[in-house]
Amino acid sequence: MTAAGTGAPPFTHLVRVYYEDTDAAGVVYYANYLKFMERARTEWLAHLGHPLAELEAAAGVVFVVTHVDAHFRRPARLGDLVAVGVRPVEHRGARLVARQDIERDGVALVEATVTLACVDRVRLQPSRIPSTLLRSFA
Amino acid sequence: MTAAGTGAPPFTHLVRVYYEDTDAAGVVYYANYLKFMERARTEWLAHLGHPLAELEAAAGVVFVVTHVDAHFRRPARLGDLVAVGVRPVEHRGARLVARQDIERDGVALVEATVTLACVDRVRLQPSRIPSTLLRSFA
Amino acid sequence: MTAAGTGAPPFTHLVRVYYEDTDAAGVVYYANYLKFMERARTEWLAHLGHPLAELEAAAGVVFVVTHVDAHFRRPARLGDLVAVGVRPVEHRGARLVARQDIERDGVALVEATVTLACVDRVRLQPSRIPSTLLRSFA
Amino acid sequence: MTAAGTGAPPFTHLVRVYYEDTDAAGVVYYANYLKFMERARTEWLAHLGHPLAELEAAAGVVFVVTHVDAHFRRPARLGDLVAVGVRPVEHRGARLVARQDIERDGVALVEATVTLACVDRVRLQPSRIPSTLLRSFA
Repeated sequence: MTAAGTGAPPFTHLVRVYYEDTDAAGVVYYANYLKFMERARTEWLAHLGHPLAELEAAAGVVFVVTHVDAHFRRPARLGDLVAVGVRPVEHRGARLVARQDIERDGVALVEATVTLACVDRVRLQPSRIPSTLLRSFA
Repeated sequence: MTAAGTGAPPFTHLVRVYYEDTDAAGVVYYANYLKFMERARTEWLAHLGHPLAELEAAAGVVFVVTHVDAHFRRPARLGDLVAVGVRPVEHRGARLVARQDIERDGVALVEATVTLACVDRVRLQPSRIPSTLLRSFA
Repeated sequence: MTAAGTGAPPFTHLVRVYYEDTDAAGVVYYANYLKFMERARTEWLAHLGHPLAELEAAAGVVFVVTHVDAHFRRPARLGDLVAVGVRPVEHRGARLVARQDIERDGVALVEATVTLACVDRVRLQPSRIPSTLLRSFA
Repeated sequence: MTAAGTGAPPFTHLVRVYYEDTDAAGVVYYANYLKFMERARTEWLAHLGHPLAELEAAAGVVFVVTHVDAHFRRPARLGDLVAVGVRPVEHRGARLVARQDIERDGVALVEATVTLACVDRVRLQPSRIPSTLLRSFA
């Protein structure tokens, strides 16, 4: 088990809140924060040089979410620009744990830990995280 | 070209409006009515004895939406129970046109016409609507 | 603090999986399970005699999700009929914790614990869970 | 009635396709293109100097969609970067018609015409499009 990138600032992806993200309570619908987190993970992998399509085509793997632990602290609202972070905090074998916090102007809105499994895209069985990807975490 | 089932009452599927369907304006988000329509089409096909999985497995076809014309007359709100209709109004070859109106207590909320193409699920090329399905429209 | 309803079978709400719920991986998109859970909570409250609109109008309160812990065990797929459970496991003051498991034919797909806060709908401050609702848990 | 901006190139908003946008058919779910269109309209208004919040606070109006006519020509897929256009083609009183086409590398995916009504945010009655906004169309 390796603690990964704990010293580095997290990768951040900015998300604008549109009507589609909100609900009748006037705030972002809770499930939609998980969409924001997945967008940020996708952009993070691309930023590391491993876009989803490349991971699937070259390494034959995809990531699936196996666990989410999310605290919803404060709501985001229509028009907000929120920063969605990704910071890998642990990885071993086929398992990757990422901290994913969502902030608005430095104020924590959502604090989440997301666990992903790297799986073979055909058999859908656990598959070691590609070493080229692991090296990019350093 | 055949006008199909125009004399019959439309198939109706009931949909409850949850928070996920609404937006910060306090009403159902406009794109979500298209989800309601697709749910109704799915239930209609199952009701006719041709669930999606059977159409795909036995006939090797899937339906894709090629055109939507939708008038949004009045909004649905959180907690509403709306009736989503499906009435085939025309079909020829691989093309099926359905009228899909959404009502609440008999009041029209959305009036839509949806055009679908029956396509071969592998080549994604137009494929005649299976005759067993056509007969069920009568 | 009171353990609530632990001996009773959970309330169950059935959800059909439509195209809107799935993603390009061919399974239900992970965030959408949280929509299913919210639908089940809504139906559970209505089943207990306290629909959302009544809680808001009569008691002046709404529930907001403050924490989700969800294990995604196995995927649901297009056409599946899944059972979404709601079982209150703890409540104190304004806080309600519910176990929400999602199954297909008795097989666990998602195991989740959802924490809700009862809040005054105007001031959005924590507000004791209405006693009439608490009594319905028994 | 005034034809507006017909000579100018449309405003374009880029949208990345994530898993959340796709369905089990491996393509973008048809209703989600309407989300992309609304994001583009929102960014277009902000680009013109009239963000939604300003229109609501200063002019007391919001826009609601009253009609959509959309042809779905070719599918967008996971990872695609699509360009969503907005070009006002007609306006009169409270009514605004916009052409909204979605392209990928210059290839038309969706061709849509969206009609909006400018409404008073309190009474939800039609309200003339603010003249400051109209002038920005020129």
